[in-house]
Amino acid sequence: MGLFTADIKTLDDLFVHQLQDIYYAEQQITKALPKMISKATDPQLKQSFEMHLKETESQIKRLEQVFQMHGHKPKAVDCPAIDGILKEANEVAGEVGDKEVLDAALVASAQAVEHYEITKYGTMIAWAKRLGRDDCASVLQQTLDEEKATDQKLTAMAESKINQKAA
Amino acid sequence: MGLFTADIKTLDDLFVHQLQDIYYAEQQITKALPKMISKATDPQLKQSFEMHLKETESQIKRLEQVFQMHGHKPKAVDCPAIDGILKEANEVAGEVGDKEVLDAALVASAQAVEHYEITKYGTMIAWAKRLGRDDCASVLQQTLDEEKATDQKLTAMAESKINQKAA
Repeated sequence: MGLFTADIKTLDDLFVHQLQDIYYAEQQITKALPKMISKATDPQLKQSFEMHLKETESQIKRLEQVFQMHGHKPKAVDCPAIDGILKEANEVAGEVGDKEVLDAALVASAQAVEHYEITKYGTMIAWAKRLGRDDCASVLQQTLDEEKATDQKLTAMAESKINQKAA
Repeated sequence: MGLFTADIKTLDDLFVHQLQDIYYAEQQITKALPKMISKATDPQLKQSFEMHLKETESQIKRLEQVFQMHGHKPKAVDCPAIDGILKEANEVAGEVGDKEVLDAALVASAQAVEHYEITKYGTMIAWAKRLGRDDCASVLQQTLDEEKATDQKLTAMAESKINQKAA
């Protein structure tokens, strides 16, 4: 986004803009995850973040594939939403003085990231289908399924263990 | 958040911090919704935003109730996540040059807000239950149910009409 982007006049423009936005977001997430890995104490949580870092890297490749399928060069535009979500994650983590409470805070922050991705991929899939790009929708669906699975795994981990240890 | 907040040492501190964060977020949402209402073209979308503004006002009252039940005065702390999500909503809307494409963009932005609330209320409910505050969890659950219903209504509206008009 910003002063130098082209005006958005069609749903296709909006779809491409959204691809650029999430392309930036996924890149920021790969930068944030190593910090979250280093802050996590619970080994299963640490491992889950490590796995999600690898997944995010393949999600970036999938986005590059969708750009190409849709005739565009991969390009990132600023995404204030993910910047805000990651800034908040970082600030909260910096204020927590107990390791087990920090794990609970990290899960909550990671789930905020997942939910941002879930809503954005969901929207992009609907737009791709409407634009007759079921091929793009199908690639994006793989990522959406991964994000939803990660979110559910985090919920299960929080409810079965992390929150209990923090309380 | 910030330099002057107390350190978070327990899950209870984290729960109260999260209440303060979402209290700020809901207030920002009540400020953002009138702009979204004025930008929306589709009458059903406009009406849905108007209804959600009223819902958000009662969600703020519910948060005040939870603060009170939990022995705290209602207080808002900065929430960079919602600021980022609303900034992005505003920026994208400013770049769209077609009314029907703008409606599609507004739905996407509103769903990003809903998903932020869904993840945060979900987390707060889990923490409240873990802290033995089923009474607080039950009040927060009412809001979570409303947020999920709003998100589903927006998806249905987008898929049945808004995206079609934008394409």
